[in-house]
Amino acid sequence: MARIVMKFGGTSVADLDRIHNVARHVKREVDHGHEVAVVVSAMAGKTNELVGWVENMPKKAGANTPFYDAREYDTIVASGEQVTSGLLAIALQSMGIDARSWQGWQIPIRTDKAHGAARINEIDGSLLVKRLGNGQVAVVSGFQGVGPDNRIATLGRGGSDTSAVAIAAAVGADRCDIYTDVDGVYTTDPRVDPTARRLARISYEEMLEMASLGAKVLQVRSVELAMVQGVRTFVRSSFDDPEAPGMSDIDNLPGTLICDEDEIVEQQVVTGIAYTKDEAQISLRRVADRPGVAAAIFGPLAEGNINVDMIVQNISEDGSTTDMTFTVPSGDLARALSILNNNKDNLGIDTVQSEAGMVKVSVIGIGMRSHAGVAATAFKALSEKGINIRAITTSEIKISILIDGPYAELAVRTLHSVYGLANQ
Amino acid sequence: MARIVMKFGGTSVADLDRIHNVARHVKREVDHGHEVAVVVSAMAGKTNELVGWVENMPKKAGANTPFYDAREYDTIVASGEQVTSGLLAIALQSMGIDARSWQGWQIPIRTDKAHGAARINEIDGSLLVKRLGNGQVAVVSGFQGVGPDNRIATLGRGGSDTSAVAIAAAVGADRCDIYTDVDGVYTTDPRVDPTARRLARISYEEMLEMASLGAKVLQVRSVELAMVQGVRTFVRSSFDDPEAPGMSDIDNLPGTLICDEDEIVEQQVVTGIAYTKDEAQISLRRVADRPGVAAAIFGPLAEGNINVDMIVQNISEDGSTTDMTFTVPSGDLARALSILNNNKDNLGIDTVQSEAGMVKVSVIGIGMRSHAGVAATAFKALSEKGINIRAITTSEIKISILIDGPYAELAVRTLHSVYGLANQ
Repeated sequence: MARIVMKFGGTSVADLDRIHNVARHVKREVDHGHEVAVVVSAMAGKTNELVGWVENMPKKAGANTPFYDAREYDTIVASGEQVTSGLLAIALQSMGIDARSWQGWQIPIRTDKAHGAARINEIDGSLLVKRLGNGQVAVVSGFQGVGPDNRIATLGRGGSDTSAVAIAAAVGADRCDIYTDVDGVYTTDPRVDPTARRLARISYEEMLEMASLGAKVLQVRSVELAMVQGVRTFVRSSFDDPEAPGMSDIDNLPGTLICDEDEIVEQQVVTGIAYTKDEAQISLRRVADRPGVAAAIFGPLAEGNINVDMIVQNISEDGSTTDMTFTVPSGDLARALSILNNNKDNLGIDTVQSEAGMVKVSVIGIGMRSHAGVAATAFKALSEKGINIRAITTSEIKISILIDGPYAELAVRTLHSVYGLANQ
Repeated sequence: MARIVMKFGGTSVADLDRIHNVARHVKREVDHGHEVAVVVSAMAGKTNELVGWVENMPKKAGANTPFYDAREYDTIVASGEQVTSGLLAIALQSMGIDARSWQGWQIPIRTDKAHGAARINEIDGSLLVKRLGNGQVAVVSGFQGVGPDNRIATLGRGGSDTSAVAIAAAVGADRCDIYTDVDGVYTTDPRVDPTARRLARISYEEMLEMASLGAKVLQVRSVELAMVQGVRTFVRSSFDDPEAPGMSDIDNLPGTLICDEDEIVEQQVVTGIAYTKDEAQISLRRVADRPGVAAAIFGPLAEGNINVDMIVQNISEDGSTTDMTFTVPSGDLARALSILNNNKDNLGIDTVQSEAGMVKVSVIGIGMRSHAGVAATAFKALSEKGINIRAITTSEIKISILIDGPYAELAVRTLHSVYGLANQ
């Protein structure tokens, strides 16, 4: 017997039939003798409808942007999960399973006061643990908690993943199963390289670095939380027949277990190849080389809410100043350039150069900490294909390479192959 | 300056435009310097959609009726009001008015444990009063509270009227304004008699007796509560232009004030003529005349959830037994007869006779307590039109007369005219 948390997203609970299907998944685990808490999102489309209402309310006099109080936004939007949790509880009861819905304020799931993008401060798991022990399934509304002001607070889009991991930590669950529309995490994007292979296990750290690949599967915050709290998180498909044989045996089931690296016996040097499209490169030439200049450059960009990535600093050609190169999302390029040009004289920048349409390709693997030559292999392989490298950054478990956009797919396939990741 | 509660039903908040219109009504009262609490229903159609989902969940194994846990039903259905209260708060804020939404559990509005049809036990008005005093508009979700189990409890359909009156009592409001799709309570149904006149004032007692007429305007429970708590309740139209002149001056506004009879200076003898269609008459002939026989007859009917009205007991023709006549809604007649026939021998009933398609016409007026001859006037007027009276029951402030269905409109118009209620 284990205690498990099961999480189902909006697509999995989009209508009454699918909610009933989710109930069958839950029943299977209950029948196996497990204690089960289920975390649910709003029915697909519901959250968008509710957000649409909020955004279409008349603007505040004189305001340019739609005006709303984030506390009211939360009150409105969290109603979607409230409905799903009630419906799933009823579906379970109709199968003869003891179940009840729990809203964030009832558990309670206490958050900070950042309405609309709140963080969970504390979950009192004692009531849930008691009910689970009595054999009652807990159906928990994801995405929501209650703030210090006793008002509903939501965790931001995709927050139900974080709810699920946090609930798993609070009740000391053996595992958190995330049911989603993919059956796990792959060595790379199968649409780019059909030889991509599903990973049976991946470490928390690697999952975080997978960024573009991982984010489609699981909210980044939930992975951070799983890492900190040591919650074993199993990504699996919600489309499988709930009553098919072996569906409760995760060791022999398609899916990916996100876990501590100690649990991964045969650690590969490289685990996966990720990529991010639509990056733009900005180069600042002959920047005055004095303390604090990096902060002076990146401060205003951060204030402008521009996400800066891949920062590379070099000595300039003239030997007395510095060159600074970094990337931003292409969509933010114009805004970033305008901020930089406005501060150009201040910052002592001679020239601002930029180019959009770049792609960042990343090689990820916890094994590279103890293996030399991983980077060299990548550079050699790309060079053999005639792919020009625009910038390189490295971390302990990741090498990121900036290249020209049109070479993205070729680079991904080349790297995927050279590290032996392809499906056999 | 006054403290007022304003209540808007589902039609008044059916979409964003109408919610904005409600905000304009609220702004008018705020601009007049009033402290305002607003009680809102779910957007029209929302509650039906949510109830539909609950009722369409799969049935519990072996059950004939749709199965659901009333606590989950409440969790799901109450989400409708939660959305409206948030949207109205945003609409008010966009007009520069300080406002916040309140859910039942936040105030709290404490109910009993009868989920789905809960009664309000207690409202702690202290938080609301404090915020109202600071100039903040309270937007309260109607129809809901929180039960002793810390779960959402709903008050039953139409419960928002009761919420509004209860909130008015809890904050010591000077008045509760009910905005609805009619502009008040009429002397009779204007569709039956175009000379029907809007009543400027009506006593709580009369409003309760108006039954069929009143129920279209206001939930009966809310009137009972208003009577017990002495909440002056003003029924007014939600269609009026919120910024039209005089809209805050209820003494000179179309509408009906439901209040204590002491506030009604020129009390008429008769206030209104109500009617209920589709009544069926059941007569039990030669019932054994022994103690407890009435209880033995009506007990099984009550258990069958059949609403018995107009009970008349007479000595039988033979002088040694009794005749018992009463009415039930026509729709329940077959079920009532089946229950009675099953218990016929038990009850010592000789014959059961019945007839459907009757109408109950009622003459209502607090003034008849001190005026003789009111009933005689009715009987004479009906007799002159050749309308046969099937049964009569009277209370201190009401005379009800059962007649054949086809004479309904004629009877209503005759009585409306004979008591001088017509519009001049």
